[in-house]
Amino acid sequence: MEGVETNASPKAFPMKGGDGPHSYAKNSSYQRDFIDAVKSMIDEAIADKLDIKHFYSTTSSCPFRIADLGCSVGPNTFISMKNIIEAIELKYNSEGMNSKIPEFQVFFSDHTSNDFNTLFASVPPDRRYFTAGVPGSFYGRLFPKSSLHFAHSSYALNWLSRVPKEVLDKDSPAWNKGKIHYGSAKNEVVEAYSAQFVRDMESFLNARAQELVYGGMMTLIMPCLANGSLISQSFTTIIEHVIGSSLMDMAQMGLISEDKVDSFNIPTYSPYLYEMEKLIERNKCFSIVKLELVARHQGNVSIPDVQAYTMVIRAVTEEGIKQHFGSEIIEELFDRIPRKIAEFSHLLDDIRKKATQLFVVLKREESDP
Amino acid sequence: MEGVETNASPKAFPMKGGDGPHSYAKNSSYQRDFIDAVKSMIDEAIADKLDIKHFYSTTSSCPFRIADLGCSVGPNTFISMKNIIEAIELKYNSEGMNSKIPEFQVFFSDHTSNDFNTLFASVPPDRRYFTAGVPGSFYGRLFPKSSLHFAHSSYALNWLSRVPKEVLDKDSPAWNKGKIHYGSAKNEVVEAYSAQFVRDMESFLNARAQELVYGGMMTLIMPCLANGSLISQSFTTIIEHVIGSSLMDMAQMGLISEDKVDSFNIPTYSPYLYEMEKLIERNKCFSIVKLELVARHQGNVSIPDVQAYTMVIRAVTEEGIKQHFGSEIIEELFDRIPRKIAEFSHLLDDIRKKATQLFVVLKREESDP
Repeated sequence: MEGVETNASPKAFPMKGGDGPHSYAKNSSYQRDFIDAVKSMIDEAIADKLDIKHFYSTTSSCPFRIADLGCSVGPNTFISMKNIIEAIELKYNSEGMNSKIPEFQVFFSDHTSNDFNTLFASVPPDRRYFTAGVPGSFYGRLFPKSSLHFAHSSYALNWLSRVPKEVLDKDSPAWNKGKIHYGSAKNEVVEAYSAQFVRDMESFLNARAQELVYGGMMTLIMPCLANGSLISQSFTTIIEHVIGSSLMDMAQMGLISEDKVDSFNIPTYSPYLYEMEKLIERNKCFSIVKLELVARHQGNVSIPDVQAYTMVIRAVTEEGIKQHFGSEIIEELFDRIPRKIAEFSHLLDDIRKKATQLFVVLKREESDP
Repeated sequence: MEGVETNASPKAFPMKGGDGPHSYAKNSSYQRDFIDAVKSMIDEAIADKLDIKHFYSTTSSCPFRIADLGCSVGPNTFISMKNIIEAIELKYNSEGMNSKIPEFQVFFSDHTSNDFNTLFASVPPDRRYFTAGVPGSFYGRLFPKSSLHFAHSSYALNWLSRVPKEVLDKDSPAWNKGKIHYGSAKNEVVEAYSAQFVRDMESFLNARAQELVYGGMMTLIMPCLANGSLISQSFTTIIEHVIGSSLMDMAQMGLISEDKVDSFNIPTYSPYLYEMEKLIERNKCFSIVKLELVARHQGNVSIPDVQAYTMVIRAVTEEGIKQHFGSEIIEELFDRIPRKIAEFSHLLDDIRKKATQLFVVLKREESDP
C-alpha cells in the first residue's frame, strides 16, 4: 500500500510525563485558562458552521471521530474533548436530530514518547466516547483518508518539528551563538525559525486536508503575534531572557560548556497573524470560519505569580533541557529561573493584557487544489 | 449519549511490561510459535471468505479497520497484524482489485494497565498501516458500532474478566482452599470457572457483534480441550502443579500465610471445544467459518526446555502474583518453579503432542437475534 506516511522522524520535545509535582499533568493550568476562555467561541462555531445534516446523509451509521493533536497527558485534553462533544450534541438537539446523535470516538494523539500510559489511566470514567491513542508527529499523516470529522489542537502547533538546522550551523549567517531561541536574536535566526514554521505548517495542513472529511472542522489554538507588534514585546522573548540567560550564566561560571549552550535551541515559534492566514489560504483546502487574536486572561482569572510561571515553564521545557544537558543541571537551572522571571515581571504584566493567543476555526471544503 | 459501555471494571492480570529479561516482550515465543502455525489457516480463511466486494460497494472510501484484542506489547501482535494485512492485500490482488486496496488502520487493544508506551515505541517503522491504541477490557464495548472489519485475538480470551467469586468464598461449596486454579480442584470449582467463562464469552461476542460490520471477520486463538479429554491431562493442570504447589510449600515453611494462598486464584480458563461452539451458536450473530483444534507444535519447532517454560510462565503470571503477594516473594517462588516443571516433564511432553489449541474463524452475518 502506498500513501501511508508514518512520519516518526520529527524530534519530540516532550512535556513532563507522569503525575509528579513537576509533571505537565499537574502544571497545565496556564494552558487550561485559555481553553475555558475559548469554550464559548468553539460552541458558537459548531452551532453555526458544523453541517451535521451533510454527515448524516452521506454516512448514516458512521461514528463521529474527533482527534486532539498534541494532547499531552490531560487533564486539558479531556476538558476540550468534553466541550466539543457537548457542543456537537447541542447542535443535533437544536436541529431536532436528537435521535440521530452518533457515537463518538476520540483519538488522543501526540509524539510516540508522550506518556500514553498516564493518559489512558486518567481518561474520565464518565466519558461519553470511545477512547483511542495515536502515537506520531502531526506533521505527517496519522489517520486514514477522510476518516476524521473534527480535529483540535491546542498549544501544540507552536512546537516546530525540529530546530531549524541553520541556527546550529557555525558556518551559517543564522548561527545563533550564545542564545537558545529567536526572541532577541538577529534577523537571520528569526527568518530560519519562520521558514521552519512555514514548512511544518504546510505539512500539517496537507496531512489534515487528507484526513478530514468534506465539511469536517478544525480548531487551532496557539500563541501568536499581532501584525506589526515586536517580538521583543512578546512572551516569546521571555524564553531567552529567563532560560537562555540562566544557561549562559551557568556557562560563565563553568557549570556547563558554552558549546553546549550554542548547540541548544528551543524549537518553538509564535507566528504573526498574517503568516498563519497566508499559509491557510495557500493550502486551498480549508475555508476560514474564524481567525482572530484573543487575550489569554479574560474576566476573573487569577494572575500567575513568579512561582506559578516557573512551574509552567519547567513542565514544558524540563524534558527537552534534560535530553540535551543531562539531568544534573536541572535543579540548579530552575533555582535560577524565579529571579529571572521577577526581573521581567513588568513585561509579563504588559503581555498578559494583550491579545496574544490565536484562535482559528477552519472548515474542510469540497475543493482539492 | 447512551449505548457507550466503557467497560473498565474487569480486573487486569497484566503481562509483564517493559523490555527487561522477564518481560512479556522478551518471553512470548511460546505464543508466537503458534501464530506462525496458524498463518496459513488465516490466509486461507481470508482468501475464501472475506467478501471485499461487499465492503467496497457499501463504503467506497472507507479504510479497512483491524483490531488486535489483548495485544499485550509485541512483537507477536505486530507479526499477526502484518500477516492479516498481507492476506487481505493478496485477496484484493487475486480479485483484480489491486487499485482498490484500502488504507489500513490497526487498533492495538488491551487493558488500561497494559504498557502502551513500550508498545508504541516498538511499532515496526516499515508498517503499512495507521496505528492506534485502545485501552479497556474486551468484555465491554471498545469501538463504535459497525466500525471494525476484522478482529483478532490470540491467547487473550483464556483470561477471564475476574476470578469467579464463589471460589474465594469460604461459605461456598466452590471454595478453592489450598489451590490457585481449577486444574486439579473439585467439581464445584471447575463449574464456577466454566460459568464465569460463559458469562465473559457472551459479553465478548455481544460487544464484537455490535462493533464488526456485516461481513466482517474474527479470528480467535486460545488454549482449548478436546471434547471428552481430562483436565488433569491438560496444560491447565500444570499451573496448579507448578505455581500452586510452590506457593503451598512456601506457606508450609511459613514464608507466606495459607490464607493468602486461599484468597489467590488465577483467572484463566481453557474451554472444551463444545463449550465454545455452543456459545458462538447461541449468540446468533456469527457464522462459523472454522472451529478446530490444532497441535501447538508443527514441523521443526524446537522443544522448550525447563528454563524456557519457566520464563514463559513467569512473563505471564509474575505481575498478578506480585499484586497479590507483594514483590518480595517473587525470586523465591520462581527459583522453585524449574524443579516443579521437571517433575511434570512427562506430562508436558504428552500434552505437546496433542491438539490443544483452538483456532476459530467467524464471520459477522447480517442477522441480528
